[in-house]
Amino acid sequence: MYGVTVRDHVMIAHSFKGQVFGPAQRLHGATYVVDVELMRADLDADGIVVDIGRASEALRLVLADLNYRNLDDVPAFSGRNTTTEFLARVVFDALLAAIGRGELGPGANAVERIRVTLHESHVASAWFEGRVGERP
Amino acid sequence: MYGVTVRDHVMIAHSFKGQVFGPAQRLHGATYVVDVELMRADLDADGIVVDIGRASEALRLVLADLNYRNLDDVPAFSGRNTTTEFLARVVFDALLAAIGRGELGPGANAVERIRVTLHESHVASAWFEGRVGERP
Amino acid sequence: MYGVTVRDHVMIAHSFKGQVFGPAQRLHGATYVVDVELMRADLDADGIVVDIGRASEALRLVLADLNYRNLDDVPAFSGRNTTTEFLARVVFDALLAAIGRGELGPGANAVERIRVTLHESHVASAWFEGRVGERP
Amino acid sequence: MYGVTVRDHVMIAHSFKGQVFGPAQRLHGATYVVDVELMRADLDADGIVVDIGRASEALRLVLADLNYRNLDDVPAFSGRNTTTEFLARVVFDALLAAIGRGELGPGANAVERIRVTLHESHVASAWFEGRVGERP
Amino acid sequence: MYGVTVRDHVMIAHSFKGQVFGPAQRLHGATYVVDVELMRADLDADGIVVDIGRASEALRLVLADLNYRNLDDVPAFSGRNTTTEFLARVVFDALLAAIGRGELGPGANAVERIRVTLHESHVASAWFEGRVGERP
Amino acid sequence: MYGVTVRDHVMIAHSFKGQVFGPAQRLHGATYVVDVELMRADLDADGIVVDIGRASEALRLVLADLNYRNLDDVPAFSGRNTTTEFLARVVFDALLAAIGRGELGPGANAVERIRVTLHESHVASAWFEGRVGERP
Repeated sequence: MYGVTVRDHVMIAHSFKGQVFGPAQRLHGATYVVDVELMRADLDADGIVVDIGRASEALRLVLADLNYRNLDDVPAFSGRNTTTEFLARVVFDALLAAIGRGELGPGANAVERIRVTLHESHVASAWFEGRVGERP
Repeated sequence: MYGVTVRDHVMIAHSFKGQVFGPAQRLHGATYVVDVELMRADLDADGIVVDIGRASEALRLVLADLNYRNLDDVPAFSGRNTTTEFLARVVFDALLAAIGRGELGPGANAVERIRVTLHESHVASAWFEGRVGERP
Repeated sequence: MYGVTVRDHVMIAHSFKGQVFGPAQRLHGATYVVDVELMRADLDADGIVVDIGRASEALRLVLADLNYRNLDDVPAFSGRNTTTEFLARVVFDALLAAIGRGELGPGANAVERIRVTLHESHVASAWFEGRVGERP
Repeated sequence: MYGVTVRDHVMIAHSFKGQVFGPAQRLHGATYVVDVELMRADLDADGIVVDIGRASEALRLVLADLNYRNLDDVPAFSGRNTTTEFLARVVFDALLAAIGRGELGPGANAVERIRVTLHESHVASAWFEGRVGERP
Repeated sequence: MYGVTVRDHVMIAHSFKGQVFGPAQRLHGATYVVDVELMRADLDADGIVVDIGRASEALRLVLADLNYRNLDDVPAFSGRNTTTEFLARVVFDALLAAIGRGELGPGANAVERIRVTLHESHVASAWFEGRVGERP
Repeated sequence: MYGVTVRDHVMIAHSFKGQVFGPAQRLHGATYVVDVELMRADLDADGIVVDIGRASEALRLVLADLNYRNLDDVPAFSGRNTTTEFLARVVFDALLAAIGRGELGPGANAVERIRVTLHESHVASAWFEGRVGERP
């Protein structure tokens, strides 16, 4: 199996509901450094998994929808805790849609799995990994 | 699959037995930067794998038993080489026990796999990954 | 000159006023990974700049006042942009006060300079460095 | 499963053929920071996956064949794009050959899988992972 | 003193002349991860050293002139070894010119010092630091 | 001013004397990831501060004297706490001696300052910086 990983980041505000979150129930924020890992069994005729430039640009566009936002005000997330884990899945789903629209090039259809990791600090991170085709 | 990773560190002394270890047969030491990755198929009702705060605290307690020790003097490790790989398994087993005692919360029972990685320098690390329920 | 550096982090929400900030004028947030570097000409009788444990604890307490807060609601910051640079100075001033109260031990009086660096992502950071005794 | 990872680096020049590569069709170069992860189900009698010193030396020798070279001039790569993904496989194959020659010690025969990751910058990397025994 | 640091990268080919360089006399290449640190005594009215967005864009433009190039073919570098140290100075000079053209905003005139660091691998880097106004 | 930085690591055991050290009074150990930064005003005729290869080799030799040792048994350190700060100075002094013996090449005589940083974990480090010529 081959993989390619690209990195970008996003800065958001949010708050959590639930006693387990302690002080994180207050409105606060985070920088998420986001790694997207695209995996497939074989390389294409150019010798790549996907074009790193296109993958980086697709990630940038996905994160632009979240960047500099208070996620508590985003209707799509209403009633949900926008935890690091949850947001990893949000980015995963948005990348699947971008692949579906052809934004990562035709070769991206051969991508089998994607892992999205969000680093929330130097000591904590979370990820979601799923098959391409896997949707909520 | 979802994963959450927390990081801490531990500083120990030890020596190894066996020609393969060369100068590491002498009493020396290491800082291990320890990453614990907890994995489960779905998020709980709060939208998390486990509470990152509780996971960090559980890891801190596990490492406190080893921290600032000469592992050559720890009876549980008698006759064993406390290699990076071996210690990854020790931390894994101790975390399983902590989950069994409920220290990571009731949701931790849904954790399916754990990977423990010990970074011994900027150029070397080792890990053990196993199913929750897997024991020596 | 000798230096000792300790690291911790803080997660906050805030917004900026001023066209230069573009979309960062909206309420958003950040994780700041914070490095505090304490410098002095000579080591004390124990062979240290300051006790790393005490320095880490002092930093933790300083950051606890900011952690999981919306800085737009903090009266002390009213009318100010809580930029990365500005917050580096806030942490610097709070550490000076902690040294003044003896929280880093008597040896901390020999500290001559402190640099506080806040990493806001994998591609951007800011710092303030000043003499101990230098105040706003 | 246990894993051990060693790191080294290599500095090369090359160019790519194909419109997808844009300006990377020009002769340019890269530093690849290379991580090799060796995996097996159980530890050997010494308590290790493989000797970290031997694994590091084997990686150094593999990279020495590529280091400070223009890969466009290497006959073995003629007609191929020496992408990050492709080179990950080249290092994988060379390590398999080294294991076959006994250079990582007799215990290396128990290694089941190897993942080779090449970091080409702070924001992009690629890897190949395969079973030991898997060849082109 | 306050500082702000932004990071980007560039991928180039080159060769060196001189026995001291050993195998690096051959045509090879490097990824340079570039940190630019801008320093000034006080913050501006917005509470910043310079706008991080503008600084990042200025750095991107400076590196675009070098990116995906064989530096042996760049007339401006004719007869010079384009070492990591030398290139740090090249980036410094180009940033001074960008500040002179107003590309970092009017506030950038208050910048007193700039340090440019080029990381050529996980184990080696080089920097040049100079006063704004200092030219070859 | 120009600087070049090289990195290596060393693994040692030791214990500290003094109540301030708490549990670190017990025999324990550390991995120190060591950065050596060599600084001079101008580049030499080859366009370098010092040869990175020679600097790396000199650092490797300096650390080889400490590597895989219990520092409590090293006569030269008798009666001293081998703290991170103290060891940074030890490495500094050993590098000065290496420069004096010509091991970094004749150009190394132009080096004006050296900073030695020892990273003891992902959250703590210490450094010593001095002029070349400065001795205990």
